[in-house]
This record gives sequence, C-alpha cells and structure tokens, in this order.
Amino acid sequence: MGFGTASKKVVPRVPLRHGEGNKDHLTSFGGLAALSLDALSSVAYGPEAIVLVLVAAGTSALRLTLPITLAIAGLLVVLVVSYCQVIAVHPDGGGAYAVGKKDLGATVSLLAAASLVVDYVLTVAVSLAAGAASLASAFPSLTHHMLAMCLIGLAVITAVNMGGIAESARALMLPMVVFISAIFGVIVAGLVRSHPAAIVGTAQPVHISEAIGAILILKAFAAGCSALTGIEAIANGVPTFREPRARRAQRTELMLGGLLGVMLIGLSVVIHREHVAPRGGVTVLAQLTAGSFGTGWAYYATNIAVTLVLALAANTSFGGLPVLMNLLAKDNRLPHLFGLRAERPVYRYGVVVLALLAAVLLVAVNAVTDRLIPLYAIGVFIGFTISQTGLVRHWYGTRSPRWILRAVLNGAGAVLTATAALVFVASKFTSGAWVVVLAVPALMLLFSRIQNYYRAVGVELDLGRFPDRPLPAKSLVIVPVGDISKLTEHALRAALSLGDEVIAVSVHPQAEQAAAFRNKWNQWNPDVRLDSLDSPHRSLVHPIVDYVRQAQQDNRQIAVLIPEVQPRRWRYRILQNQRGLLLATVLRASTDVVICTIPYRLTTR
Amino acid sequence: MGFGTASKKVVPRVPLRHGEGNKDHLTSFGGLAALSLDALSSVAYGPEAIVLVLVAAGTSALRLTLPITLAIAGLLVVLVVSYCQVIAVHPDGGGAYAVGKKDLGATVSLLAAASLVVDYVLTVAVSLAAGAASLASAFPSLTHHMLAMCLIGLAVITAVNMGGIAESARALMLPMVVFISAIFGVIVAGLVRSHPAAIVGTAQPVHISEAIGAILILKAFAAGCSALTGIEAIANGVPTFREPRARRAQRTELMLGGLLGVMLIGLSVVIHREHVAPRGGVTVLAQLTAGSFGTGWAYYATNIAVTLVLALAANTSFGGLPVLMNLLAKDNRLPHLFGLRAERPVYRYGVVVLALLAAVLLVAVNAVTDRLIPLYAIGVFIGFTISQTGLVRHWYGTRSPRWILRAVLNGAGAVLTATAALVFVASKFTSGAWVVVLAVPALMLLFSRIQNYYRAVGVELDLGRFPDRPLPAKSLVIVPVGDISKLTEHALRAALSLGDEVIAVSVHPQAEQAAAFRNKWNQWNPDVRLDSLDSPHRSLVHPIVDYVRQAQQDNRQIAVLIPEVQPRRWRYRILQNQRGLLLATVLRASTDVVICTIPYRLTTR
Repeated sequence: MGFGTASKKVVPRVPLRHGEGNKDHLTSFGGLAALSLDALSSVAYGPEAIVLVLVAAGTSALRLTLPITLAIAGLLVVLVVSYCQVIAVHPDGGGAYAVGKKDLGATVSLLAAASLVVDYVLTVAVSLAAGAASLASAFPSLTHHMLAMCLIGLAVITAVNMGGIAESARALMLPMVVFISAIFGVIVAGLVRSHPAAIVGTAQPVHISEAIGAILILKAFAAGCSALTGIEAIANGVPTFREPRARRAQRTELMLGGLLGVMLIGLSVVIHREHVAPRGGVTVLAQLTAGSFGTGWAYYATNIAVTLVLALAANTSFGGLPVLMNLLAKDNRLPHLFGLRAERPVYRYGVVVLALLAAVLLVAVNAVTDRLIPLYAIGVFIGFTISQTGLVRHWYGTRSPRWILRAVLNGAGAVLTATAALVFVASKFTSGAWVVVLAVPALMLLFSRIQNYYRAVGVELDLGRFPDRPLPAKSLVIVPVGDISKLTEHALRAALSLGDEVIAVSVHPQAEQAAAFRNKWNQWNPDVRLDSLDSPHRSLVHPIVDYVRQAQQDNRQIAVLIPEVQPRRWRYRILQNQRGLLLATVLRASTDVVICTIPYRLTTR
Repeated sequence: MGFGTASKKVVPRVPLRHGEGNKDHLTSFGGLAALSLDALSSVAYGPEAIVLVLVAAGTSALRLTLPITLAIAGLLVVLVVSYCQVIAVHPDGGGAYAVGKKDLGATVSLLAAASLVVDYVLTVAVSLAAGAASLASAFPSLTHHMLAMCLIGLAVITAVNMGGIAESARALMLPMVVFISAIFGVIVAGLVRSHPAAIVGTAQPVHISEAIGAILILKAFAAGCSALTGIEAIANGVPTFREPRARRAQRTELMLGGLLGVMLIGLSVVIHREHVAPRGGVTVLAQLTAGSFGTGWAYYATNIAVTLVLALAANTSFGGLPVLMNLLAKDNRLPHLFGLRAERPVYRYGVVVLALLAAVLLVAVNAVTDRLIPLYAIGVFIGFTISQTGLVRHWYGTRSPRWILRAVLNGAGAVLTATAALVFVASKFTSGAWVVVLAVPALMLLFSRIQNYYRAVGVELDLGRFPDRPLPAKSLVIVPVGDISKLTEHALRAALSLGDEVIAVSVHPQAEQAAAFRNKWNQWNPDVRLDSLDSPHRSLVHPIVDYVRQAQQDNRQIAVLIPEVQPRRWRYRILQNQRGLLLATVLRASTDVVICTIPYRLTTR
C-alpha cells in the first residue's frame, strides 16, 4: 500500500494528534471525552460478564452481583488513587511502559509493552463485538449477522484511519454526554420504577454446572474487572492536557473514577432489583434499558448510543498503538521505521496491521464478546500490576512523607490486580487465555532481539564516538547504456557533473551488435568513453557487475548511474526500469559502489 | 520471490537452452525427442476425445471412430506439408507469431501470440490431467486423487524449472522410444490377437443424448483434432537444429507426421475391433493396452511410460513460454523485463505465473482432461489457421512456380482448421470455451496497449535520433544525517568524492536538539557544511524534500546521497534503511534530483 500511493504525489502530512501541536490541548472535561470513552463504554460489557459467570451456579447466584460489584468499585478506588499518583510521578505520560522502564528494569518494561500491544488489538475486537451485540439487541434481525457487523464496522474505522483523522475532543463530547445520560437514566428509572419491567429477549434454560464458592466468586470478580479496562489511558496521555497538566489529568481521572463507580454500582443494584438473567440475543444492559424506558424510542436511542460509543472506543486503539510503537522504536525495540509515525505510509502500516489482527480475533471467537473478555483483561491487569509495583518501588526510593502508607496502598492494589490476572489465566487458559500467554512472551522476545540487533549495529558503527574525518577520493561514474536517446543524454550529463571520470558501458550478445552500437556512438560523439561488454549468455546484469567489480580494485570512489524513466501513471511502472532495478539489486548485494538513479519524467499520457 | 533470493548472493546464470549456445544443436532424430513429445503424447487423449463425443449417440456410433480418425489423418498430412513449407519460408523459427507478423499484419500476430500464451498454459494442464488419468488407470486406488496428483506433478515440474534446467534431447530420447514402442506394441498385439481381450475398469451406463448426424461428426472430428496439438513446435524451433537447419527440421516434421498418423489410425482400428467404450476410471488407451498385453507387468509399464511422457510434455511449456515472452518483449508487446530471460529472477517470474495459471485451470475443471480439450484445441487451431493463411499470402506474393497449387493446398488447410476452431467455440462455448473467447482478446488488447505505450515513450525520448551532446554542470551533493558514526563518515567521503559542493542536512523537531547536534558536529569538524531543518510536525521526509526543492532552483546538478546499512541476514532488512527508502521514494516522485545510495556492509552476526 503506502509507498505506491504516496509516490504519486507529495505525501500529505498526517493531521496532528493531541499533544503534537502547541494549541488544542485538553481541558479536564475534554480529557474525559478524548481519553476515557474506552473506560466508560466498558459498563456495556463488565456487569454482563459478572452475570454470565454467576449464572453457571443458577439464577439464585445472581444475588452475588451487587457485592462483587462493590468489591470491584473498591479496586477502582485504589486504581484511581494510584493513577493520580502515577500522573504526579510521571507527568510525561507513558503509563505502564514508562513506569516499568524507569522503576522496574528492562524485562518488566518489555512485559508492559507486550501486554499493551495485545490490549490495543483486543480493545478493537471487544468494543466492536460489544457494539454489535448492543445494536442486535435493538434490532433482533441482526442477531445472526454479528460477525459481519463487526467486520463492516472494522472496515469503516480502518478506512477512516487510513485517511488520517484528527480526533477532536469536541466531537467526542456529545456522544459521551448522551451515553452517560442514558446510563444514568436507566439507573434512575430502574430505581424509581414501580410498574413491571418490559421483557425483551428469550429466556434461556439455566444449566447449573458450578456451586457457589470462592472459585466462582473470584472468577466473577475477575470477569467484572473487565469494566475497569481503559482507566490507565489518562495517565498515558498527560502531555495532551492543558497546563497545569498533572492537576488537570488528575481531575479527569477522579471524574472518570466517580462516574464509572456510580454507573457500575447503580447498574448492579438495578440488575439485583429486576432479577435480570442472560437472555438470548439481548445484552444485560439492553434488558435494563427496556426495564427502565420500555421498548419505545428511548430503548432504540440508548442502544444506538451505546453502539456508537463502543465503536469510538475501538477507534481509540488506532490512535494509541502508533504512539506506543513510536516509543518502542525510539527505544530500539521495534524497527526504527515506526519512529516515523508522522509519515503517512508508516502510519498506514500500523493501521492495517492492527485491523488485520483484530479481524482475525473477531473471526476466531465468532464475534462473541464474552469469549474475548478473559484475554482482554489479562493484559490490562498486567499493566495495572506493573504500574502499582513501580509506585511501591518509587515510594521506597524517595522515602517521602507517608511513604509507607502509600507503598502499602499501591502494594495492595498490585496484589489485587495480579490476583485478578492470575485468576483469568488459570480459569480461562484452555478457553482462549493461552493465546495471550503465548503472545506476550513472543512479543517480549521479539522486542528484545530487535534491541540486541540495534545495539550490536550501534557498536559496529561507533555510535557516540567521533569517526575519522571524511576525505575525498577521485571518482569514476559508470553509466550503463542501451541505446542513444534523450534519456542517455540526461544520464551522461548528470554523470559528467558528478564524476571526475565517466565511462559508458553497453552489453551485447554478439560482436556485430557491439560494433554497430560503437559506430552510432562515435557518430553521436558525446565525448564519453564507451566500453562494450560481451554477453555470450545474454545476461545484461552480470557483465556489468563483473566490470564494476574489476573497476573497484583501485582506490577510486565508484558510482554506477542508472537512468530511470518515470511514467506518469502508476500502472505503467512494470513497463519501465525493471532492468535497472535488477541491476541495482545485484550491485547492492555484491559490490560496495554508490548506486545513483536519475529520474526522467515522461509526459506521455 | 526472485529479487530477495537473488540479492543474497551473486545470481547464478540460467543454463543454456537449445539454440542459445554454439554446440549441442539438434539432429533430426534429436529434434523429435526435444520438440515433439507434446505432439506424440497427444495420442493418449486424442482418440479418447473422439470416443467420448460419439458415445453420446450410443455405442453403435463408435463405429464412426475410424472414418473420423482417417479424416484427421488427412488434415495431419495437410498440416505437415504446410509446416514443411513454413520451415522453408521462415528458417528463423517463430511459428504462427512470426508468420502472422511477417505476412498478415499486427492484429493477426497479436491473435497468434495470445492464442499461443493460452495454449502454453493449457498444454501444462491437459498433459498433467491426462498423465494422472493414465497413472490412475494402472493404480485404481488413485482414481479419487486425480487433482492432488496433478498439483503434486505441477509442483515438482515448477520446482525443477525454478532451479533452471538444461533440457537434453539425449535424456528425452529414451522415454520417447519406450513410449512409441509401447504404443506400436499395443497396436500390433491388438491386431494379431485372437484370445478375448482382458477387461479393465467398470462399464458405464450409456445415456443417449444425441443422434448421429453432421453436428455430432463435426464435434467428434474437432475433439479428435486435439491429437494434432503440438505439431507446430518443430517449425517454431528451427534455429535449434544443426545445419542444414531447414532440411533437418523438415525431416523431423515428416517423421513426426508419419509416426503420429500411423499411431492414430492404428489405435482407432484397434478401438474398432475391440468395441472399446468409455469405462469409469480407466482411459481408452489403458483399455487397449490391457486388451493387447493383458494386465501383467507390461500393462503397468505402458501406463507409467505414458504418464512420464505426458509429464515431460507439460514441461515443454516451461521452456517455450519464456521464449515467446522474450519475442513479445523485443516487439514491445510485453514489459521489457521479459526480454531479460537469461536473468534467473525474470525467468522465475515466468515459471511461477505459468504454474499458477495451470493450477487454477486444473482446480477449475477438477483435473478432468475432457473438459480442457475444447479450450486447448481452440488456441491451437487459431495458430494453424494463421500459419496456413500466411502461406497463402506468401505464395500469392512470390508467384513462384506452382504457387496456385500451393495456395490451394494451404487455403484448404486454413478452411479446415478454422472450421475446427469454430466448431469448438460453438459447441463448447457454455462448457468452458468462453474462457478462451474472453482471454484471447483480453491478451491482444494488453499486448497492443503495451506496444502503444512503448511507442509513445520512444517518440518522447527521441529514440533513433541523436540528442544534444551531454554537458557537465556544477554539482551539489546533499547528505541527510541523523547522527555521527562510521556510517556518516562513509557517506560524506563518497559525497565529497562525487560533488563539487557537499551539504549535510539534519532534521530536528525542537531547536534545542538542533543546537546540540550542531555542537557535536562542530566538535567532530568534518569540514562539511551542516544545515539544520525544523520539523514541527515531526516529519523527517518533508523538510528534506522541501530543502532539496529549494536547492533545485539554480542550474546545478543536485544529488541526494543516502547511506544504507546492509545487514548480513535477510530478515534484518526491515530493521534498517526504511527511512532512507521512504525519503528516496518521495524524492523520486516529487523532484528530479539524482538519488544515490551507498551500502555500508555490517559484519554483525
């Protein structure tokens, strides 16, 4: 992709993302819209995840929804407080990767990077799957086309990002406000309602396969923690806030924590009151909506708003992954290519890779949100644990006032989140978590091998030391010629300008052809020496390469200048320059000469 | 493929094919082995094609096999005589394409080229499908794996050709002699036998769907003509014969005609005597073999020999298509790339394209020979018709003695073969012939558009006229630098050798970084001017391109020199040079400067 399109015309610049320009920085409320949609939208699948685990022990187990949600809200408080501290300690942003690198060493930062990459992919897949489920709740005829809806949504988001979008906090504000209002509406109406709830969806038979016990409760807790995904995004994005950055970011983090906590607890109280249970084709949130608003226009509007916000949440990964890849490239842990995020072809590579991986995941789980939740949460909780542990280390290092209290708080958070991650891995290993267990170490190994390679190259290039001063040598420019035309004249003019000496070489399978060409050359008389090369095997490339190799033996700087006809249309490319390309490839592989190409722009068609 | 592999080490030369070296030219009998396997092996499917058409009118219709074969033998005589004349008139070879180009103009030669390309693909598919059927006749357990056998055979032939093979007439001689002996053995034993024939295969119920009539006879005639495919190959390959070329080639053509005619008539007499009918899983030729030799070792040996010769016939296309593409490239009707047939990467492109097209065809018809026959024969008969018509035109032009007799002979041949082609198209249009009817004009259009393009470019480049003499200008070499290392020194040394003036440019998003780099630069003091460029948008490429554009405004020859780190292992390529590649791509698209790359070969790992 990229290169071909890019070279047709001057590559337009990718629009700025937040934090790259000097204005347009975020207010606290703007930050909520720009950085928290992922976290806020997770109320669409978090409570449902708890219900789906608990129902395995029968509908009576659903009464545990509220206490488990309260425990999750407790963890939310711990996390929000820690992230406010992360913001204060790391005002340059970077989240778990930056914290890990600074306080916990290379291996932990690789772990953080790998789990973040996995999570960016999963955010796209989970949000799209949940969005499709929400839309299908409103329009039941879509129920059998969930995967198709997800892939269409993915295609649209990918296409929009290929074009390069400037996310505007202002544009995201309205969907966010509608979404929050709708959720609060559901909660309030559900609490005050006295008439019987409208029923949507078909009741499913309950197969009791587990007993109520510690394991079930831990599993439900871990599944519900998927509602906490995304709350690290504000800490990652501190540089995008208006000054005073840290203070504004902390305020946003607190707002997010408050909203998320109230929404989660509120929804679980309503779930408790209305005896909601999993029903075919309708999400738990949609059931609550129907119970509160009935099944009129407000039901449709709420479901559509939820779908929209989930799609926007999927979109945030397309903004976030390139930033992370850029950081990794600057640390020599990904190809330096990805450090060129501002160049559109590079940016597009990232977009396409992310979209393909998300598509594979969606197809693999057939767009069922619940099958992605455990994979998703593992990576997020690895990140949480790293951030918390890093803070413990930080407090221990600073010994600031009240450091013990702070270290204990963050230590408790680290233990809780690590427990959640372990429960996820253990309980869901065979049903998909193995993918994450394989992917994270594989990515870590990849990053580390890339880093080793760049380090070795840096040593070999003497990076950081001053090399000898460069001294010029005499130069010889060799120009392969096939016939005499404006192209030949163009190439020889450039060669004469660049070289102390210029030799044209031509290749002929037969001596008569060589003589005929020399004759023409002498008639033209360009004042350039012509060497004719034999090619009994009809190879064009090898006689020239052999000639260049022999010329290389003295101390001159040798350059081979290859003229390139540039057709006006892209599809004519295959018709031109293939011989030059082949020659350049072999020369590059087998000699150390400078390879020069000079474009000759055609006006034909 | 190609490029990557090729650039790891020096590309080895593709071995010579016949006619490219100075020795090893063919004798008459050697020519039979080297150029006629395709034609001779078609007795394995030609008679069967007749039987399959006739049986639609009931088994009694099979008595028409012999008269139809005699008519085909009559056409064979006409074609052999004409091709002897083609050889005399076109001793440089080239077959229908050369004849068409010389005597019948551009459009007809495009038609010939397109049908030849189609036929090279079909030869591979038909020969493999017929070979698999022959092998499955000997080993009935293979009957349900015909497609797999074809694809495995195709993969083997492709792999052998990717390595580059030197076909040796000597190596082909033995299989050919075994094959011809086996067929003659089948005929002689079938004629002299008195004991009842061994029966192999399962009888199939006959559904009478047509009446005996002119249409059926024409269809059977046209289908049987598939046995004539390949007899044009000798005329195409005259330059590969030893002197006196034309005479030896004519002798080979006559030998081929005699052998093929005797085999066809002999087989159809035996078919007539033994009341052979299509049987499930066993070819007609295998039934005849069982009838003549019984089902002992001779049956297996004959079937295996038939399979081997058919596989070798498929292999001839891999030798023939590159030669035709080379001719077309020299006539500006295919990308000039394919004129470089001696370069292994180019040769491999052709091999892979041919293999993929043949694989698609085999999958599309599920490896059933009979479904490919009509497609196959259309192209061949277009070629026959063109050759004959060209000769008529030639005789008319020369008015040599007896020209009227010759013109009438070739005219009759042209009418017969054109009729066969039309019958094929009409009777098989809906069952596959439409593919050929679409592919041939599409290829003609492609060739013609390519030719128009090259013609327009030639005009623009003043090909054939002498341009101005090249005059040197002052030169400026611009070197983008990112840091100071051995790589920088390497690049600057080359730049100083090539340019009258050298400027290093560095790009920085922030002014402090620019100042720090300038400071380092001054410490190193390489005696090269450094220009620092701002990049508020963090783009690396655009500031440099803008700088180069501004520098371009005076009359100097500008070059941009980009150092390229060459890792030792191929898989490290993605880690290096991507920035340079991006810069080169944009510069090439949007400026007219010389782009120089200089390799720096790493020893790391």
